[in-house]
Formats: sequence, structure tokens, C-alpha cells
Amino acid sequence: MKIALAQINPLIGDFEGNLHQMLRAAEQARSDGADIIIYPELTTCGYPPRDFLDFDDFIRLAETTIEQLAQAAYGIAMVVGSPSRNPRIEGKDLFNSAYFLADGQVQHVQHKALLPTYDVFDEYRYFEPASEFNVVTYKGLRFALTICEDIWNVGNENPLYTTCPLDEMRAQHPDVIINISASPFNYAHSHGRIHVAKANVQRYGIPMFYVNQVGAQTELIFDGGSLVISPDGQVYDELPYFQQCVRTYELSKVMSGRGSSEQPKHKYHLIHDALLLGLRDYFSKLGLRRAIVGLSGGIDSAVTAVLAVRALGPENVLALLMPSPFSSQHSVDDARQLAENLGISYKIIPISNVYDACLELLTPHFKGRPFDITEENLQARIRAIVLMAFSNKFGYILLNTSNKSEAAVGYGTLYGDMCGGLSVLGDVYKTEVYELAKYINKDGEVIPHNTIVKPPSAELRPNQKDSDSLPPYEVLDQILYQYIDRSQSPKDILDMGFNPSLVRRVLRMVNINEFKRHQAPPILRISGKAFGVGRRMPIVGKYLG
Amino acid sequence: MKIALAQINPLIGDFEGNLHQMLRAAEQARSDGADIIIYPELTTCGYPPRDFLDFDDFIRLAETTIEQLAQAAYGIAMVVGSPSRNPRIEGKDLFNSAYFLADGQVQHVQHKALLPTYDVFDEYRYFEPASEFNVVTYKGLRFALTICEDIWNVGNENPLYTTCPLDEMRAQHPDVIINISASPFNYAHSHGRIHVAKANVQRYGIPMFYVNQVGAQTELIFDGGSLVISPDGQVYDELPYFQQCVRTYELSKVMSGRGSSEQPKHKYHLIHDALLLGLRDYFSKLGLRRAIVGLSGGIDSAVTAVLAVRALGPENVLALLMPSPFSSQHSVDDARQLAENLGISYKIIPISNVYDACLELLTPHFKGRPFDITEENLQARIRAIVLMAFSNKFGYILLNTSNKSEAAVGYGTLYGDMCGGLSVLGDVYKTEVYELAKYINKDGEVIPHNTIVKPPSAELRPNQKDSDSLPPYEVLDQILYQYIDRSQSPKDILDMGFNPSLVRRVLRMVNINEFKRHQAPPILRISGKAFGVGRRMPIVGKYLG
Repeated sequence: MKIALAQINPLIGDFEGNLHQMLRAAEQARSDGADIIIYPELTTCGYPPRDFLDFDDFIRLAETTIEQLAQAAYGIAMVVGSPSRNPRIEGKDLFNSAYFLADGQVQHVQHKALLPTYDVFDEYRYFEPASEFNVVTYKGLRFALTICEDIWNVGNENPLYTTCPLDEMRAQHPDVIINISASPFNYAHSHGRIHVAKANVQRYGIPMFYVNQVGAQTELIFDGGSLVISPDGQVYDELPYFQQCVRTYELSKVMSGRGSSEQPKHKYHLIHDALLLGLRDYFSKLGLRRAIVGLSGGIDSAVTAVLAVRALGPENVLALLMPSPFSSQHSVDDARQLAENLGISYKIIPISNVYDACLELLTPHFKGRPFDITEENLQARIRAIVLMAFSNKFGYILLNTSNKSEAAVGYGTLYGDMCGGLSVLGDVYKTEVYELAKYINKDGEVIPHNTIVKPPSAELRPNQKDSDSLPPYEVLDQILYQYIDRSQSPKDILDMGFNPSLVRRVLRMVNINEFKRHQAPPILRISGKAFGVGRRMPIVGKYLG
Repeated sequence: MKIALAQINPLIGDFEGNLHQMLRAAEQARSDGADIIIYPELTTCGYPPRDFLDFDDFIRLAETTIEQLAQAAYGIAMVVGSPSRNPRIEGKDLFNSAYFLADGQVQHVQHKALLPTYDVFDEYRYFEPASEFNVVTYKGLRFALTICEDIWNVGNENPLYTTCPLDEMRAQHPDVIINISASPFNYAHSHGRIHVAKANVQRYGIPMFYVNQVGAQTELIFDGGSLVISPDGQVYDELPYFQQCVRTYELSKVMSGRGSSEQPKHKYHLIHDALLLGLRDYFSKLGLRRAIVGLSGGIDSAVTAVLAVRALGPENVLALLMPSPFSSQHSVDDARQLAENLGISYKIIPISNVYDACLELLTPHFKGRPFDITEENLQARIRAIVLMAFSNKFGYILLNTSNKSEAAVGYGTLYGDMCGGLSVLGDVYKTEVYELAKYINKDGEVIPHNTIVKPPSAELRPNQKDSDSLPPYEVLDQILYQYIDRSQSPKDILDMGFNPSLVRRVLRMVNINEFKRHQAPPILRISGKAFGVGRRMPIVGKYLG
């Protein structure tokens, strides 16, 4: 018995393209002699389809895709995820299902029971949980089909669900666990995934074939890293991260548990590669090619530009340097040096004349009030106007360069530097941006040394430094990490020994700036808790406000 | 036995303020001789608290509020919604609960079983469903406590859940149904609410006291309209919409079923009042006072300005008229007339000089390319810069004036006219905006006649009309309504007889503009399906794209 894992990259709603990808993978597996090929969760329609699931036509297209796939299931069986309809009038109208296809037919359908509804997940919004559990027998072996979260109630100190699908199937004596997943990346997630897979194998004493989707879907990055676990609980193989892969295994060899190949898990290596995939798929899946980025000479725009160049190619990235009256010469020099290091086109477009024209228009109405955040924001917004004009005229997509620390405390101009089609670093804290820059420079200077060592500044008034308005990033990021990533309460954070008034100030800044983040671009998610779809806060509220 | 309904307006996370409101309502009910007072769902913390529920401290504050409230529950019993902790390790950590407080103690807690997780609702994100159901006896009567959705599986052709809480309690022979709700307004919802309440009363043959939250929470507007239903299934009383109200009922009179008082339900009257409440609460709950709006002379900004004035007072609204080289004289005249009708301050700030300065900066880089959407967007973005400068300098909140039709098809400039802290009309189709304008003018001209009758135009190029780029709004809005509000599939919409290529074009416009809506301000929700939290679509996808 040979089993193939197909770690593929579907596009949401592209039924034809996804079918084509699956058929191509099946060809490869067939030529490797595979008896069964396993695709990820909801591969017919791509994951997460979100509210497209509300459209009857969307479900019909998924059903048609299953029929077409079944027609190709001769000589090889297929396990594939797709939505299916709930025949009962009570409950949600759909299931999230694993189909077992063989000999041109649907042989078995197992629905998902554990429906993740937290963080970025909304599955109970659409799906009814499974209430029946049955193994499927093929070529004399009994396979327990599970879908992503179905195995995550095991090996877990705070199980989220009151049922456990594999417990329900245990009496049917399965020989092999199959898990089809769409499990999004975060830089710490692969450890957890391996831990949970091993815990299941150890609990049930049978091997597991786990296949994960790869590819980015707007803000979510799926890393692949599909797994084969031998019955002794050891990793037999871990597929590559961030790339498509079809690989076939001889079950008898997996049973004997002699292989062991795991991927490296260095944090900044993972984040770097994840962001490249996130960028690349955003552009390629939307049929886009070219990006524009405003270079300030600072670290955030520098790292964003490097990632864009590595994802899209230097010929597809344009940089604008837009000095204002408050920009220092080193900023322009550093930005120019970066552009030259990267081999990308750049233009220097000073914004002083437009800034002056705006002041001339506005000053009579400002009644002698002093220079303040208004004039600072004005500069950032004029730069956005220039960038968006290039975007509109030539079809460049503006990349947002805000980092997670800024997004958290609202240190950014709405409709100014917060603009962009995609936020590349919005889930990377400032201190992590520095680490990422060092990682980028590990084989030689790409980002100018001065960009990395100079004190961060928005340069929107004379001699401005971030540290004028914000605590040092080393402290700020620790508080933010506890509050945002770990959902720690104010009291818990205070108990860690941080300065009480600083904690209150930081938490207040986070909460009162919810209105800004509401209008931010989608953020490529690389942590366990990113701003965006995975963190849902009221704008109007008083708690910690 | 006298029972009081307390239709109050909590602020999310304002435990102290919410407690104070509840105590004040209890005073009033006590003076009316009430034996029991009923507050809405999750009133301790306000609904919807969203991810604040992840913070242990937030739950502790809710628990403390319940303790404080119980201390006041002497001489009157209280039914109040609050989160509670799930003592079991398996499952979600919280319940959405109804507490029964009397004689200084928690006498009973009933958890919610049906957890709405669709449209704007995310309850299964936080809460474990109830698995036990018990009535509570007080002064010789058995009360069945239910929470909002718990009663919505009855009187329903497509029940969303497989259990029905009142069926579970039936064997305990309840005398009265109590329902505590936080059920957001839409212009057609009150009919459904009354239908469902009646269906429950008819099924179980006992009266119902239903209390709904009132007040706006960012985009969600809660309308109140609390209900008392007599055992014969007739409405005994319906509390006012959009205002707080505490009212006490003699149960024996409700049982005899002789009263009947329902609120008027005229669509544009409801929408008008809902938007006023939405605006008013957004400002008051955030501690804001003053709004700024850009007046174009068109219908959307006119209606927005009227609503702002009615919600906030003319002294708190500033209008800017910002003609560009393509603005017609009648636009300025119409806008000025409106400002004068409303008695608000206005300023005329022509943007031509800034526009010229931008063109001077950009044209050398545009390589002789013709005037296009770039220059159109430029004007809209310069206006946004001016409005935001006033906002920053003086503390005005910019009101967004986009309507639902524009938001749907992407007929608006990102970082231009799509800016604002709150979208007032983003859930009102263009044809509905006209109806709302007529409603506003019903007692005399507020919005200038010419604004209502002239053909809509963005005036971003010479002689531009909306109809140059879009189908007539009468047709467009019908297609949009079917696709967005009713989630009808392309095939279903074609079957209604619309032009096939037009349908494809419109649906494509809706889908490819998801990226713009992602960065839109929160939209006051007045329909059954608004853009924003209740409609979750992938940005990257191919279906209908």
C-alpha cells in the first residue's frame, strides 16, 4: 500500500484551476505507484472560502468538481476536502467534509466534527458539526478520515470541544489516520502541529498521514509542512514549508518507523519565507505583477522593499523617495543606497511644493494655531497621494510598510503611511523587524548599515525620534506581546514587573486606536495573533480605553 | 406579580456605568411596584463585547458587577445577562448566561444554548452552548429564562439548530417565558421578531416578556422594541424604538390579553431614526462632539449632513465645500443652500491650487499619458487631506458619505471620498438615499430640490455623470439587493430576467472591489446584510471575479 500526500496551493473559488492542480498531482502519484492520494481540506473551493459558502452556486460548483475528480479516481483512490450539503432541515446547511473517491465513485464521506471558531477561524458560521463517525475500508485497510481541527482535542491541556472524533471511531479499529488540513502558518505553529500529530498517534497506536494546504490566501499563509507519523510516534517525514509538493510513501516502511526528516524551524528564516509566499501569492492570484513602495530611509520600508524584490523580482518594484522639509539627508542617502543594492528603479519626488500649497490653503483657517500633528499627518498623506497616483496611472500595487508595534499603538497616519493594498510587516513587531533585517543581511549588506543602526524616526518635524512619543521598542514590544499575542490581562502584565503607568498608557493606546486599524490593509499573518480577521475588537467601548 | 422590562443602553466595557444604569432602572421599577426587573443580554459588559471576552480581567469585572447587582436585589428580583465561566475543562471557557438575582443572591443561572454564528454574530467564537435547562421558581411562578437566539428556532422554516431550549424546559411546566436579547436592528427585523415571539407563545401557551438592548455599538444599532406577548399570542405591548424605556406590567392583565400597542414600522422613518441613534451613540460613547462633512452638492453628502445635524446639533457640524476645476456652479450653490437651511457653519475651500501643485509634481513622471482615473482620484484625495487636516487641527470627526451602491461596485476613491470615522449611508442603496431625502423633506425643503432632481455625478471630469460608468441605479440596486442582501446566486439572479451581461458585470464589480471595502470605515447597519462585520469575503479569490 502506497499513500501520496499532495500539498497543493488552491485559489479560492477557482474550481477549474484547483481541479487541474489535483489531477496533475494524481498523475504524479499514480506514476509513483500510489494507491491513495490525499489532498488538503476544502481543496475544491480553496480555504477559507468565507461567505462565498452562502451562495448556492458556489456549492454546486464544488459538487461538480467532486464528480469530475471521482471520474479520474481509477487506479488511485483520493481523499479530498469539499463542502457538502446537510440533508436535515435542522442545523446549518453545510458540512465541511472529507470525500473518499475510488473507482469513479464517492465511496464515503466523513464530516468534520470540531469546527474551529476562534482567532482567524469562522467554521461554525457555515458548517454543522459531524454527529456520525465511520472509518472507510479500502484494499483491506480501515482508514479514519479526520479534518484539521478534528485531531486537535488531543494532547491539549484546555480541549475546546466536548467530543473527540477519533475516540468515536476507535471501536471500528482503524489502521491508519488520515488528516486533511488547512492550518495557517505562524512562526511557532509547526512545533504545536507536530506535538498534536504525535499525541494522536501515541493515543491510538496507528500511523498518521497529515496533509496541509500550502499558499497564501489574502492575509493567511499556509505553510504546508505535511506530516507522516509512524506508529511509534516519531516523525517519518515532514514536507517542505512554503512550496507545493507531492510525495508518495510505502506504508510498510512508515509502519517500521525508520525514516525521520524534519524541516528547520528558525524563526526569522520562517518569517522571511512566509512573507515572500504571502507577497507572491497575493500578486499572482490577483493577476498583479508590480509593486510600489515609499522608501523613507528607515528600517520598515527597507525590509518591505527587500521582501518585495525577492518575491516579485527587482524589475517589478518601483521605489519613491519623497523627502519633505523635515527629512534628513541621510534618509535620502540610505534609501537611495538600498534601491541601488536591490537594483530597482527609484524616483526622488520632493513633496515640499505640494506641502506648501496645502499650508497656503489651510493656514488661513487654522487661526494661528501652532504646528502640530496636523502638519505631520499632512506630509504622510501627501506621500500617499503621490504613491496612489503612480498606482492608478501605471497599475502598481502600493505596499504598506507599517509594523505591528506602530499598528498597535496607532503610531501612523491614517490615509497616509497606513495606506497600501497589502501590509507586509503589520504582524512583525519593530524589534522583530530589526531581527529580520539582520537575517536579510546575513550573507552581506543588502539593507544599509546606517538604516539598521540609526534611531528610528518618522521625520515629520525637526529632529523627531520615535522615542519622543513611545517607550523604547524593547519594552513596548514586550508589553504588546503579552497583551495582544497572549491576551494577558492588565493585572497579569503588571505582575510581570512592568511599570504600571507605562502598562496603562500602552494598553490605552492599543484600545483607542482600534478605529485606525479598522481601516488598515490586510496584514500578512506570521504570529499567533495578528491584527485583522483574527482579532475582533469593538471600536466603541470603554474597557481600558 | 408585576414584571418590569428595562430597555437600556449599555456601553461595552463600562461595567460601572452599566451597573449604574441598571440600578437606576431598578429604582424606577421598584417605585412602580415591580417584583422582577429584566435587563437585556450581556448587560454587565454590553453587547457585543467581541474579543474583550478573551481577557480574564474583563470576565472578572463582569462577575464583580453581578455581585454588586445582587446586593441591590432586595425587594425586587433581577434577570440580567452576563458572561459566566464554564467549570468543565472541555469546551469553550465561557457561557452567555442569564442570571436570576434575588434577596442579595444569585438564585439561578441559565446558559444560552443557541449561539448565533452568522452575519454579524460570532457567539460560538466565545461561548459553550448550554446543555442543561431548568426553570426558576420565584413567588410561586416558574420562569423559563431564555437568551435572544434561544427562541429563534421556532416559527422558522429553516431552523439553524438541532435543539430547542424551551422544548427542553417544557416538562418543568413554566408559567412565563423570559427572553433577554441584544438583537440588532434592520429595517425589516421587527416583523420577524414579533412573528417569532408570537410563534413561541402559541407553541407553549404561556406569556413572554422579551427585553431588547437599545443603543448603537459601533456599526450595530439596537432598536429596543421590547415585547410583552399575552398567552393568546397577541402583542400586549411593544416598547418604543431607539430610546431607553423602563416599563412595568401587571402579569394578570397580560394574561387576560386585552392590551395591544405596537410601534409604527415605516421603512424610512425607521432608517432615519436608526441612523440618528447610530450617529449619536458613536459620538457620545467615544466622548466626541463635533463632525465635519464634505458637501458636494449631491444627495449623499446632503443626507449625511442632515442626519449629522439632527443627531449632534447644528452647532456641532462643520461643512466644507471644496470645488475643483470640474465642479459646476450649481454644486456649490446647492451645497451652500443646504448649509444655510441647516444653519451650520461652512467654508468654501477651492482645491485647484493644490491640485495644480500635485499635477506639476506628477506630470513629469506620467510620460504624456492622458487624463484618467488618476487625476479623478487625485481630486477626491486632496479633499480628504483638507477634511482630515480640519479633523486633526480641531478634533472634528469626518463623516463618510458613501452609499451602499457605490461601496458595492467600488465607485469611490480609496483614501478619498471613502475616508471617514463612520459611514452613515454605507448600508443605504442610492435609490434608498433618495427615499430618505424625500422623507427628510416631508415637512418642508431641508435638502434643496435641485440636489434631489439633478442627475448624480462625481464631477471629477468635465460633464461626468454616474450613468457614464454605472447602469441606472434603479436596475443596479435591484441586482445588488439580490446578490448582497439575499445571497442569490448568479443563476438565480439571471432567472429573474435581468440582462445577463449586466449581471455578470455588476457581480464582478462587487467582487473585485472587496479590497476597497476592506479599508472602509465602520458602516451603520440598517439592512439585513451590510458591508462590514456581517459580510466576510476573501479579497484574493476567483469566484465571479
